This record gives sequence, C-alpha cells and structure tokens, in this order.
Amino acid sequence: MAGLENLTLGKEIVVRITDLAAISETKEHLARIFLTPEHRSAAELILRWMREAGMHAHLDAIGNVCGRYEGATPGLPCLMLGSHYDTVRDAGKWDGPLGIVTAICCVADLNRRGKRLPFAIEVTGFADEEGVRFASTLLGSRAVAGTFDESVLNGRDRDGISMREAMRDFGLDPDHIGAAARARRELMAYLELHIEQGPVLEANNLPVGVVTAIAGATRMAARLTGMAGHAGTVPMALRRDALVGAAEAVCAIEEFCRTDGNGLVGTVGYIHAAPGATNVIPGQVSFTIDLRAPTDTHRKRAVADIVRQIEAIARRRKLSLQLDVTHENRTVPCAPWLKAQVAEAILAEGFAVFELPSGAGHDGMAMIDIADVAMIFVRCRGGISHHPDEHVELADADAGARVLLRVIENFRARE
Amino acid sequence: MAGLENLTLGKEIVVRITDLAAISETKEHLARIFLTPEHRSAAELILRWMREAGMHAHLDAIGNVCGRYEGATPGLPCLMLGSHYDTVRDAGKWDGPLGIVTAICCVADLNRRGKRLPFAIEVTGFADEEGVRFASTLLGSRAVAGTFDESVLNGRDRDGISMREAMRDFGLDPDHIGAAARARRELMAYLELHIEQGPVLEANNLPVGVVTAIAGATRMAARLTGMAGHAGTVPMALRRDALVGAAEAVCAIEEFCRTDGNGLVGTVGYIHAAPGATNVIPGQVSFTIDLRAPTDTHRKRAVADIVRQIEAIARRRKLSLQLDVTHENRTVPCAPWLKAQVAEAILAEGFAVFELPSGAGHDGMAMIDIADVAMIFVRCRGGISHHPDEHVELADADAGARVLLRVIENFRARE
Repeated sequence: MAGLENLTLGKEIVVRITDLAAISETKEHLARIFLTPEHRSAAELILRWMREAGMHAHLDAIGNVCGRYEGATPGLPCLMLGSHYDTVRDAGKWDGPLGIVTAICCVADLNRRGKRLPFAIEVTGFADEEGVRFASTLLGSRAVAGTFDESVLNGRDRDGISMREAMRDFGLDPDHIGAAARARRELMAYLELHIEQGPVLEANNLPVGVVTAIAGATRMAARLTGMAGHAGTVPMALRRDALVGAAEAVCAIEEFCRTDGNGLVGTVGYIHAAPGATNVIPGQVSFTIDLRAPTDTHRKRAVADIVRQIEAIARRRKLSLQLDVTHENRTVPCAPWLKAQVAEAILAEGFAVFELPSGAGHDGMAMIDIADVAMIFVRCRGGISHHPDEHVELADADAGARVLLRVIENFRARE
Repeated sequence: MAGLENLTLGKEIVVRITDLAAISETKEHLARIFLTPEHRSAAELILRWMREAGMHAHLDAIGNVCGRYEGATPGLPCLMLGSHYDTVRDAGKWDGPLGIVTAICCVADLNRRGKRLPFAIEVTGFADEEGVRFASTLLGSRAVAGTFDESVLNGRDRDGISMREAMRDFGLDPDHIGAAARARRELMAYLELHIEQGPVLEANNLPVGVVTAIAGATRMAARLTGMAGHAGTVPMALRRDALVGAAEAVCAIEEFCRTDGNGLVGTVGYIHAAPGATNVIPGQVSFTIDLRAPTDTHRKRAVADIVRQIEAIARRRKLSLQLDVTHENRTVPCAPWLKAQVAEAILAEGFAVFELPSGAGHDGMAMIDIADVAMIFVRCRGGISHHPDEHVELADADAGARVLLRVIENFRARE
C-alpha cells in the first residue's frame, strides 16, 4: 500500500471537493441547485480547472460543463468521463463532484506528463442529476444523450418559476437544448466514478468496486381500506384493521427480499394510518413500495410475486387494495468489456476485484442511449450519502483516482 | 316480538333524542360541549322532562342535571340511573343521551301509573364525560363521586379559557364543586344504559346485552430507532429498518390479542415513519399501543408479555427501543348481584342473556367509588359511534327501555 506521501491525486481531489462544497445556497446546508447563481459559480470553477488541466472547456446548451483533452491527433472519438455537480438539499460534498474532480485530476496528470492517447478524453459535469428543482432527474445527461423531454421545460419550481424561464434567466436558450446532444460515434464509452452511497465496500474492507449494473426500480403506492372502529369496543375477530394488513405487507416485502439472495432490495419508506388516533382502529393505510434488482427480469418477477402476496393479505383480511405503479426505471447493465478493463486496473493497483450493483440512479442511466457504460464505486464512510456526514477517506479518493488513471492509460476500444 | 304499535317507550325516546340532538354548537356537526350555551339549553330541556315525569330536578354544582322520583316514603336511598349529555365533536346523537332519556321515560311511565317503589329513583345527566373541552374525562361523575381533581380547574380550553373561568361564566361556583358529591349511603346502586359502541350485539343478533366490566386500558408510546439509508444502496442484510421492526410489533400485538380469547384487545392506531420518503429506509418509527382487558390482572400480564415481545424484536433487529406508558385505567367490574337482576329482566322480555365487556370508558368508572355499578348495552348499527352515522333502531331503544323498566320495578337491594 502507498504511504501518505504518495497520495498526490487524493490530496488534490480533497482540496477541490472542499472548494466546490463552499459554493452553496446557504453556508450551513450544502445545496447547489440547477440554474441558480451557485450553478454558475460552480460551473466557472470547474471550467477553470478543466482549462488548467489542458482541456478545451465550455458550458453546453443545458448548463453542463464539457472539457475535452485531445488525443494524439485532434478530432478523435472520446472516452467520456463524468458525473454531476448539482446536489440535493443539505447534501454531502462527494456525491457527484468526486467523479468530475477525479477525472479532471487524472487529465491534469496526463497533461503534466505531456501524455497524449490514441483517443480523446472528455470530462462532462452534468448540471442536474438529482432533479431537486423541477422534480425530473438526469436533465443534464438526458440532454447529452439527446433524450431530453421538452415537457419538463413547463415544469415549475417551488417558487412557481418554469424551467423555461429559469433557463432564460441563466442565459441559456430553452429552444436549443438539442445542441447539447452528442452522437454515438463521438463516444467510445462512458465511464463514471462515484461514491457507493451504500455500506457494501466498507463491509468488505475495499476502497473501490466494479459496478455490475445500475439497478432498475419499480415504485408503487398502496392503499389498504378496512373499517375504522373504537379501539376498546371492537373484538379482534370482528376487526378489519388496515394497519395490521399493511404491517403484514411490510414484513412480507422484507422477508421476500431478504431471502432472495440476488441483490433484490425492497423498502417501505412512507406509511400513513388514518384516522391516526391512539384509540381508533385504522380504517385506511397508505404506504409506498420501492423495489430494485440488478436485472429487469428479476425485478419484474419480484414485483409480481410481492403484489400477489399483498393481494392475498388484503383478501384474507377483507381489506380493499389499491396498488399503483408510480415510477419504473429499466436496469442499465454495465458493459462487460469495460468492466473487464476496470477490473484489470483495480488488480494492478493491488486491490481485490469486487463487483456490486448500484442501487442508486446515475447519469449512466441516460448515457446508455449513446454509449456503453461502466462505473467505478469508491467506498464512503458508513454508506451514508445525501447527508452532511457523507465522507470519503483521502486514501480512498486517491485509490479511485489511481484506478481511473490506469483505466484511461490502458483503455482499448471495444473489439 | 312486539309489533310497532306497542313501541310506546321507544317512540318517546326517539323523539326526545332528536330534540336533544338539535341543541348543538353548529347545525351541521353535532357538538355539545361542557359549560357552553348548548350545555345550558340541553340541561333546561332535560330538567323540564324530569319535572314532567314527576321528579324533583335541579342543576348541581358542576352542571349535572339531577332528577329524583321519591319512593313510597320520602328520603329513601335511591337506585341511580344515568349517563352523560355532553358529546364529542361531530358526534352521533345516541352516545350518552340514550341512557338519560330512557331512564326519564321509565320514570314517566311509573309516574303515569302512579307507581311508587320501596326506594327512590334518581336520574343523573352528567355534564361532561367525553372530556372534549378540558382534556380530562368523567368530570360530571367524578364530582358526584367526590373524586373531582381540583387541578383540572386550571386547565384551559383551546381558546385559553380555564375551567374555573368557564364555570363562573356559566353561573357556577368553582369553589363549591364539592357540593355535587353524594354519599355511598344515599345510593343502592348505579345502573347505566348506553349504546354498545361496538359490533358485538349486532353480530349476535341481540338488541341488548349485560356488561361484565368496563375494561381497564393501558396506552403506550413506542419509538424504534434504527438507521436511515438509501433504499437502493443498502443490502437487506445490512439494514436496521425501524419500520419493519414496528410492522413486526404491530403483527405481534394483533396475534397476541387474537389468540387470547378472553376479551383482550390491542390496537396500534397511530404510526409515523421518519424521514418518510419513498426511497429512504426509515430510521425511526413512532407508534402507539392501546391495550384493554376485562380484568386488570389479565391486562397487566398482557402488557408485560407484549412489551417483552417488542423488546425481543428490537434486540434481534438491532433497533433501540423507547417505550412509555402514557395512560392507565383500572378495570371496573360490574356487580354480580346487579348483573343478575339485569339478566332476569332481559330473559323476562324474551331475549337471550348475552354478556360482554365494555371496551369504552363510561361514568361507572367514577361511580364505582360510591356505588356498585352495572350497565345495559343497547345494539347500535354497525358498531359505529362518535360519528354522525351512529344509529339505534326504534325497536332496540324500546327493548332497552322495557328491560330497564323491568329492572327498576323488580329491583332488590344487595343482600
């Protein structure tokens, strides 16, 4: 293992992550929201870093920052690296920026050594992945992939400002988002480094991991209706308690996912029992279900099985059931040929190769439409993310950068 | 069964219940709250009915209406009948008034026949049982039982008016509540007729039932704390999901009560999961537990067993548990000698004798301190109460009145 004196890349990354984190809506709570003054300040800082690293850099038609480090000859197809620089509210500083900053540091290193490769390198900082402002995610990468949904322009933020207005105020033309789109032939691959946002690498004592797929997700809204009643006067046998039905469903979902053993995860994150008084049997309960699996087949089968179980619970308890799919995302598999090159680099850096799915969504979900995709995960403390306590150790940031640099220097196009 | 032409008592009851229901804070939602103009109007109406039924009647020191029908000689101890005439908000019209109105109709019937008994009959309409205004229940019956808690006088309603002030405005002297208290030697028994507020009589196809006891209750507030996390990135095996723990507890409480078979009922009426987002594993869940049983021993054993089960769930799931008893009421058993006289009357009226506990609280919980207590339950439609849909059939109101009248006419003092 490298001693601290060798952590050049890691140290540079930590300094820049800290600089970027200073650009926030408020000092107390990190928030960097799409098409705000903080968006502009962060873009300017990243564009400066890109140029210092020897790249041509510009803001694209939707507010993404795009840097290009030419290869041995100008105009070659590129290996695109990237991540996002917007945040959730009260965010951590690593989710997104780590991928951009690490990529820039790698390019800067190549540039310092005067090294040119037989392909170009591009670094894209996506302007909106989290979707905080207009309740629609992946806006930056969808624009680059040419799949931006124009109807989002009419969406309004919490102050009633439409995305169209916000773009104009920012100095962008909402009628020319198409100009941000890239063609498949321009990209050899899209490779993203990101914090894991989960505890698996930590539990396996590893600084980095190879992502197998960005898990697809199905979200459902369930409502069970029974009969409210007095908590003292209705005997157990005559009750149609909607909360006990929901509780049984919550337990069934956990049990189903726990015994799956193939990366299926299921979560009930929200529950509400009405009328909600201590001494009243709940007559109606609403709850959400979030199911994710590394393959779509697996997820769809799980959704069907779990729906069947909830239907059986409702039937047995004489509850009426309303169950709606509110959101569905396909699984984005990482390309085997890219995974193999990432694995090679990890081995060469002296770490065990560990594969894991990404349960969280990432810009690769949009980029898959114009390129093969791969991801490198970096360990984060306690698996904590979307929280000020989000943290990556200097040594792990450095390990991630060394792996990424090695992937870049040894990169071979798909055969 | 009696034909409609014979339902004299029932018809009179329905007319009076309807008259009383017209006295309400608003026309749309029945609400008759302690120490309000509606309290006064209702009291005046009931006092008039009492006098028309041949009773001496007065408003006592806390606003209860008290009517006395002398026995064969003046000054004899009384059989006290009663219930309350305050309501919850958006109430039904039967909960409380049925007991008062039925008792007055029975006395009126005796009076019409010029019948005097070897004891007096008193009818008490308690001014506050529900405790809506000052968040303390049984104020009327506690004053009669001499157990009124003076500290309640300092309690304030939602407009900031203290009970002390409200009493003065009503024309009552808060320093003389003691004058409402009655002595044990004045009462031979306290007998209350009330709607069941549950579905048991309906399920058994019976108009009336004999109450075995007013069930004691223990209420608890539980809080389970685990670890919040991303719904996609934390594998099932690494989760400490507070909601699944709570769901398991909800199921365990139901299972425990359902298999008890001895009248134990348990309810989780309120639950809240934080942070409460679809895609976040709940880190903390709060919920309430309401447990009631026909005997205190039974309830206390059940509370201990259920607490042990929840502790085991928390331990197994590595959740921390905070569990507090927020409320506790002893069980009030109905006196066997009184139950026997009620059962006799029910049989004589041609109905099967059916015993059931009262899960809801009643004025008998206070009256037990100065008298043996019994209750007659009358079937209500669908077990619905504390709701505008609360309903009693004319024939059932009549059946209740005939049973009560028979109990009165055949009443023998405790041996």
